[in-house]
Amino acid sequence: MLKLSGQGPLYLQLYRAIQQDILTGALISGDQLPASRELAKTLSLSRNVVVQCYEQLASEGYIHSKQGAGSFISDVFIHLDSSMTQESAQIPQPTVEISQNAKSMLPMWEQYRLDLQNPITPKIDFQYGNVGVDHRLEQQLRTNLRNQGAGISPNYQHPAGLIRLREVIAKYVRQYRGVNCRADQILITNGSQEGLTIVAQMLLNPGDSVIMEDPGYRGATQSFKSVSAQISTVNVDRFGLCTEELPVTEGRGSPSHVKLLYTTPSHQFPTGGVMPLERRIALLQWAKSNQVMILEDDYDSEFRYQGPPIESIHGMDDSSQTIYMGTFSKIISPVLRTGFLVLPDQLIEPACAIQWTHNRHSPLVIQQMLGEYLDSVHFIRHLRRMRKRYSERRTVLIEALDEHFGDQIRVHGTNAGIHLTAWTSLPVERESELIQIALDHGLGIHTVTSLYRKTPKNIGLLMGYANLANSEIRKGVKILAQCVKLIDPPPH
Amino acid sequence: MLKLSGQGPLYLQLYRAIQQDILTGALISGDQLPASRELAKTLSLSRNVVVQCYEQLASEGYIHSKQGAGSFISDVFIHLDSSMTQESAQIPQPTVEISQNAKSMLPMWEQYRLDLQNPITPKIDFQYGNVGVDHRLEQQLRTNLRNQGAGISPNYQHPAGLIRLREVIAKYVRQYRGVNCRADQILITNGSQEGLTIVAQMLLNPGDSVIMEDPGYRGATQSFKSVSAQISTVNVDRFGLCTEELPVTEGRGSPSHVKLLYTTPSHQFPTGGVMPLERRIALLQWAKSNQVMILEDDYDSEFRYQGPPIESIHGMDDSSQTIYMGTFSKIISPVLRTGFLVLPDQLIEPACAIQWTHNRHSPLVIQQMLGEYLDSVHFIRHLRRMRKRYSERRTVLIEALDEHFGDQIRVHGTNAGIHLTAWTSLPVERESELIQIALDHGLGIHTVTSLYRKTPKNIGLLMGYANLANSEIRKGVKILAQCVKLIDPPPH
Repeated sequence: MLKLSGQGPLYLQLYRAIQQDILTGALISGDQLPASRELAKTLSLSRNVVVQCYEQLASEGYIHSKQGAGSFISDVFIHLDSSMTQESAQIPQPTVEISQNAKSMLPMWEQYRLDLQNPITPKIDFQYGNVGVDHRLEQQLRTNLRNQGAGISPNYQHPAGLIRLREVIAKYVRQYRGVNCRADQILITNGSQEGLTIVAQMLLNPGDSVIMEDPGYRGATQSFKSVSAQISTVNVDRFGLCTEELPVTEGRGSPSHVKLLYTTPSHQFPTGGVMPLERRIALLQWAKSNQVMILEDDYDSEFRYQGPPIESIHGMDDSSQTIYMGTFSKIISPVLRTGFLVLPDQLIEPACAIQWTHNRHSPLVIQQMLGEYLDSVHFIRHLRRMRKRYSERRTVLIEALDEHFGDQIRVHGTNAGIHLTAWTSLPVERESELIQIALDHGLGIHTVTSLYRKTPKNIGLLMGYANLANSEIRKGVKILAQCVKLIDPPPH
Repeated sequence: MLKLSGQGPLYLQLYRAIQQDILTGALISGDQLPASRELAKTLSLSRNVVVQCYEQLASEGYIHSKQGAGSFISDVFIHLDSSMTQESAQIPQPTVEISQNAKSMLPMWEQYRLDLQNPITPKIDFQYGNVGVDHRLEQQLRTNLRNQGAGISPNYQHPAGLIRLREVIAKYVRQYRGVNCRADQILITNGSQEGLTIVAQMLLNPGDSVIMEDPGYRGATQSFKSVSAQISTVNVDRFGLCTEELPVTEGRGSPSHVKLLYTTPSHQFPTGGVMPLERRIALLQWAKSNQVMILEDDYDSEFRYQGPPIESIHGMDDSSQTIYMGTFSKIISPVLRTGFLVLPDQLIEPACAIQWTHNRHSPLVIQQMLGEYLDSVHFIRHLRRMRKRYSERRTVLIEALDEHFGDQIRVHGTNAGIHLTAWTSLPVERESELIQIALDHGLGIHTVTSLYRKTPKNIGLLMGYANLANSEIRKGVKILAQCVKLIDPPPH
């Protein structure tokens, strides 16, 4: 029987009671939750409370809904079933109570862990985020590394990072993204994930509201959930965030006050839309009147193929409402993962306080090496080389998709970045089938479905092309076409 | 006028109201708070509430108490005074509300930031934590670095770290510290600070209780405050934590339930006591009956000079109550800062979830390099060399202190590590004077005073000797003796 604690909002009480049952194995993978109307009646709660609770559980991955069939406990908890004796069951009954935030982080981690245990390594993989090893770069970095370490005093280092690296980045973002900032507004991170988490911890108390795009980047979802924030979403279209759908929020101090909006305007992740000027202005105006901070994640803006580059939102912002986030993982190497935040003046000290408390500072050797490299002609040449390479691969992919699918597939997000989204006409219910068939044929494909709050009707493929040779891209698309035909044979 | 929010415990409401006044400049550095009895009367609160509030503010550094004179707003906020126009005033009136946790982290950061801006670099500095550059090590690391980077796939990396490094560490802690664990119980961190913060975030909800030693390590204080935990303390003596003073706590679920105890048993930081076997057993029994997790910070156990090595608490623990924490910063280089946690089975997944959410994983290049190095004969030779070097320096320091001070100074903590504590007979009120006089003479000294909750009577010096040559140590102590004589001239 679900036992409510009596503290806090009702939907949260219910959420925690159900969460506890799941974590202790009282509810196991595949179990069905009662319909919201039923549970509301049983517990004498309003149906809205139960619905809100179920939405929270679903968004965190504890449960999933099957259209017309109900809500079920997620598969990720299958190993918590005490009746199954699996060697891999690594989570015994918890006898020490972990924190609420830690509980929020578990489901998404569990999903990833299962992937880790069973890494699927198909011959050709359109996995987004795989950035290959560039040998010239590797060599250059190794040469740089050899000269590092000397001259760095580990004592009295600023958590924001080595000043040289911050100056180079300030120059870089000014030149390439119209981000006008001083070096001391920059904080070096271990990558996007650390940047997201610093912002989340800096601005959000438990229960505070954040707005994300739907679909959106799960790394951001993770960070916001890790501080027990409430995430609400706004739709996107082929021009990114639908700014006309931004809600009117209540002012600061009200419980539903939105503190932060997370956006990927240069190349919406994952759908790829580029936010046009009018929407950027509208977003800024909205943020200003509603007192919301904007977190602008410019994760792959170095690669543009069509259309003029649009100035960053940060560059247009005259009221310090924007935190700008960048990363070098995609353009240099995820192995030397480094990113940065550009902070409004009033947030420099809080961000430094968090970085210093949690981590002191990003590894100094890597910072020193990066500062040198970014300031060198090698970097400029590398960028140029990568742009050319990715531009080719992009073209090959678009042409291959056109050749094999024609009108059957709608391609989005080709203007920029190192991935595109390809919408099939296959119903989303056949997704696992398609993925499995592809795997059987040595092909790795990935969909955008799990990134949506409101499940789309069709299967949308998230296709990263940075790490595939032209021939692999062509072959991969050919195999994909065969697999799609197996699922959905064309009429005779 | 202080405005209480009406939500949560009264002392916390009052704390937040005063904190807000401080952060917005309504109360400025040097302002005196009313006596607790007075404020209680004015606000119609119990005096206990006000006292508890003042203690919280003091422990976080917002206020400090002067014996018999009252409580004053700390100096660190001097730049928030809006009537002063300083170029260095980097914190304008906040127009965006930062989180409660961020506010808790600000005072300690602000203190450090002031130190950063005015780094005092005396010729001879007994600063603890300075570990010098060892040239043979640097060369070896650079050679290793050159060969790194190849063969690491940044994709599908486990947040706990590269398996090779974890295996090497498991072997290492078994051999040297009696820590019996599997490689998969180990999580690689960016150093002690990240380890502390992962544990804090994993176990502590806001308001949960943690026990620390008094005096204790401020890095730990920071991490616990960053999750808004309540810190209570237990005294230490020359044998470390006074286990007979451990409180009887209420069981799990009660509001005052202590979730975690942080201890430095191998070499109490800062007083240097080594916790004997009887107390270790007593601590484990207490932790078991009170359902408290122990966080054992073994920060410098590689260097022992007297007495047999005592098995880690972790090694004696048969009920998985202990998290063991180690670091390579002191024995290799703080520049390549790496540490690790050894986790009980039930906490592996939560810790991984946190690391993955916040940071993905520690930088792979450094992990790979460290894994190779720790497994090599170079590391063993390096340890041996460092032990010999530090043992010599320790002896030189002890002899110099004896020569110049004789009975006037009591030396503690010489059994292990790379620092000792030297208690003078000078009253603590003369501390700033002594530090300044020493600086004027080109000598850097540091005291344990700020690490205490209950301020000691005398000045205790925290003397790190790892980074000083023998001649510098002798000279430094000679200068120290001269400075002490200036403060407290011997009777004629």
